[in-house]
Amino acid sequence: MDPFSLRLARATTERGPLCVGLDPAPATLASWGLSDTIEGLRTFSERCVAAAMETVACIKPQVAFFERFGSQGFAVLEETIHTARAAGLLVIADAKRSDISTTAAAYGAAWFGETSPLFADAMTVTPYLGLHALSPIFDQAKAAHSGVFVVVSSSNPEGRALQQAQLGSSTVEDSLYREIGELNAAAGDVLLGAVLGATRPFDHGPVTQMAGPLLIPGLGAQGATPHDVGERFRGLGNTLVVAASRAWTDAGPHVRGLVGRATELQQALRTALS
Amino acid sequence: MDPFSLRLARATTERGPLCVGLDPAPATLASWGLSDTIEGLRTFSERCVAAAMETVACIKPQVAFFERFGSQGFAVLEETIHTARAAGLLVIADAKRSDISTTAAAYGAAWFGETSPLFADAMTVTPYLGLHALSPIFDQAKAAHSGVFVVVSSSNPEGRALQQAQLGSSTVEDSLYREIGELNAAAGDVLLGAVLGATRPFDHGPVTQMAGPLLIPGLGAQGATPHDVGERFRGLGNTLVVAASRAWTDAGPHVRGLVGRATELQQALRTALS
Repeated sequence: MDPFSLRLARATTERGPLCVGLDPAPATLASWGLSDTIEGLRTFSERCVAAAMETVACIKPQVAFFERFGSQGFAVLEETIHTARAAGLLVIADAKRSDISTTAAAYGAAWFGETSPLFADAMTVTPYLGLHALSPIFDQAKAAHSGVFVVVSSSNPEGRALQQAQLGSSTVEDSLYREIGELNAAAGDVLLGAVLGATRPFDHGPVTQMAGPLLIPGLGAQGATPHDVGERFRGLGNTLVVAASRAWTDAGPHVRGLVGRATELQQALRTALS
Repeated sequence: MDPFSLRLARATTERGPLCVGLDPAPATLASWGLSDTIEGLRTFSERCVAAAMETVACIKPQVAFFERFGSQGFAVLEETIHTARAAGLLVIADAKRSDISTTAAAYGAAWFGETSPLFADAMTVTPYLGLHALSPIFDQAKAAHSGVFVVVSSSNPEGRALQQAQLGSSTVEDSLYREIGELNAAAGDVLLGAVLGATRPFDHGPVTQMAGPLLIPGLGAQGATPHDVGERFRGLGNTLVVAASRAWTDAGPHVRGLVGRATELQQALRTALS
């Protein structure tokens, strides 16, 4: 299997940068006329995958919304990942996991273990414990030909102070982009990408040098339009993955509506970014 | 039900500060003569809980080691939490979760939802997205009379640079201790505590003002002795919870051995902290 970064670049070139988010929140299930139960969760996920496979390169299930149903929710997530991957979709597990040592290795095993029922093409992680503490996760991603998106510049305002705290002559976030670039260079492969909120100002230098894909949340619900994304991200060398969750699932509950909305967003993003 | 902080203070006064960690890593299961399967995981967890209920105030299952088995692993975690709580143990889910908005609320529902199969007395979270972004988790903890431990000063060296980055006239970690103190004061309750590695130097002022309990990892495996913990943490006003994982499960595979080791560690900690 080719490395994740190659598969992602190929798939987004072919289908476009849109990544649809599966965020089965109680309010979203209700707006589809579904119950906030394991059955509602399953129906929601099945329709999302059915629509995604016609229109996009990748899907991003938000793990928290499955986790709230405990083991039964994880069973639905397993089915969802399996069906999506079997249909050729790339699956980015939005898990924002984080730990050190053998515990980090256990998260690596959960999401990138050869026989794990949760095996994904990529996952998101957060770096409060230090980027290098996550290396057991990175090692297992590499072995699995999967990738990791490190949350660096989040879309929400509450994270700004910490993410822009002063670290030597730089900031926490710019130091992270540089460290990711160094790890990618050392791996001889583009193993790591970053999460960068659609509305966040950023310094192009460190992001370009990172050489990894960008996962860009904030389209729709958090106020960014495809035009905004184009203005901010056009011309960067990085592979771009633009996530839409509520801005997409608002077009439910029918698969036809979801296909239509994804097609619209895909075209608007392609135009804005070209 | 009394708030978590009261229940924790009462239970640790009665039984001592030791919190035993359930870290069913492949190597640990092997050292107990157990297979690295769902059956091995279940046997390990059952023996840990059986020993813990005789000797300690609280247990800390490390979620990653259950997550690596997907939904089946979560089912074992559910049984483990249920058995432990039914026996009067406090359960701190070491999940290190982190997200914003409705997703943070979903993690709150997963671990503190009234009917959630994963319902815990407390969980750990990481603050890279900003402490206030986690408020939907805090709100649900409060409603459930549960608590949250925020990872502030981790025991591993890789996190030091970020955690000590300059934030205004302070550091990231000292700012977090202060923000936690403010949130505790505003809640009119000690809702939040912090994770502070056993070997980490720290400034007493912000930690004391936080007024929340401290979860202290690093005993044994990461090099700290009960004596070291005593030297560093004696005389702080905070409720102390000292976690031992491998330093405890090394005394397995038999329940009697685990009870003996926990009793030894408990006594050594009481002496060192008095």
